[in-house]
Amino acid sequence: MTFLTFYNAVLSEVNSSADLPFPIEKALYNKGDIITNYHEIEDSVYFINKGIVELSIKSYMTEKIIDFFFEKEMVASLTSFLIQAESDVRLTALIDCELEMVKYQDLMQAYKHDLSINKFGRKIMEGAYIRKSNREKALLTKTAEEIYAEMFKTHARYISQIPVNKIAKYLGIHPESLSRIRKKINS
Amino acid sequence: MTFLTFYNAVLSEVNSSADLPFPIEKALYNKGDIITNYHEIEDSVYFINKGIVELSIKSYMTEKIIDFFFEKEMVASLTSFLIQAESDVRLTALIDCELEMVKYQDLMQAYKHDLSINKFGRKIMEGAYIRKSNREKALLTKTAEEIYAEMFKTHARYISQIPVNKIAKYLGIHPESLSRIRKKINS
Repeated sequence: MTFLTFYNAVLSEVNSSADLPFPIEKALYNKGDIITNYHEIEDSVYFINKGIVELSIKSYMTEKIIDFFFEKEMVASLTSFLIQAESDVRLTALIDCELEMVKYQDLMQAYKHDLSINKFGRKIMEGAYIRKSNREKALLTKTAEEIYAEMFKTHARYISQIPVNKIAKYLGIHPESLSRIRKKINS
Repeated sequence: MTFLTFYNAVLSEVNSSADLPFPIEKALYNKGDIITNYHEIEDSVYFINKGIVELSIKSYMTEKIIDFFFEKEMVASLTSFLIQAESDVRLTALIDCELEMVKYQDLMQAYKHDLSINKFGRKIMEGAYIRKSNREKALLTKTAEEIYAEMFKTHARYISQIPVNKIAKYLGIHPESLSRIRKKINS
């Protein structure tokens, strides 16, 4: 799925042949490449044509994984992008990735006068908010096993591509505990 | 501060005498009143003229406090509002509150054709996202003491109005641990 298709699906009321109101660039990343690093100012938002992107944060001596982003989703170090300040998270290509990028200046320019792009931006932010809010509620109220079971249900086709130690880091548990959970769910 | 003033401050490019593109209603709540309850579908977003609103969630046998909202801020059971599904959070007036409400249907109607309200909605969602994202990062990387110290710094004038057991519930610690943290910070 291309970003244009995605954009028009989000703005379902707009004619599906409409052009994007900003330039986009394609970018290819190899497995393990850093897309946006700690302390960089995020200059783009990315639409994932193909691949999986990992979002991580430093926590004292370790690193924690905040989220994974899959095909047909948008990703960025979003707070850094929105306020143009140094990023406290890192974006890494978990497998080979094909992305489409929108630059900050181009998006801000389009936001000035275009109704559709403001609707689009609003809806994307609503979705990003709901995702974050659900994650917060999960952290406050769910066990690692419940979170894994949900992830297993919603992202079954991707989960085999994520290394076990990374899923454990996302759940905040030891890889051994995850093995026990996986055995239980698979049995 | 009224919602009109707030609305125009967010949309700084718009003439400050502009009318709101949707009707608003005033509502008064007494300390302890429930504004939106568990399992209700949120039908409004609220601007806080005066007061403090508590956002809580059920977690097994207990209740946890997700956030506090203060004067000049907007609050709602936002996921419930956005997708018009049952709320898994509760909004309570922590002290007497004076609110201005925008109804779901009125906002959706205004979103259809109005550029300014879409910019406004986008900016509000960006702010709500950043707030949630910061809270998630704090939950993942900060100690209760660090979170309290920040809260103490940014909301000094309100913190004395929030009961100690509620702050402890927000931090996820026992009230006795909070007493120790407060003594340390005040000394």
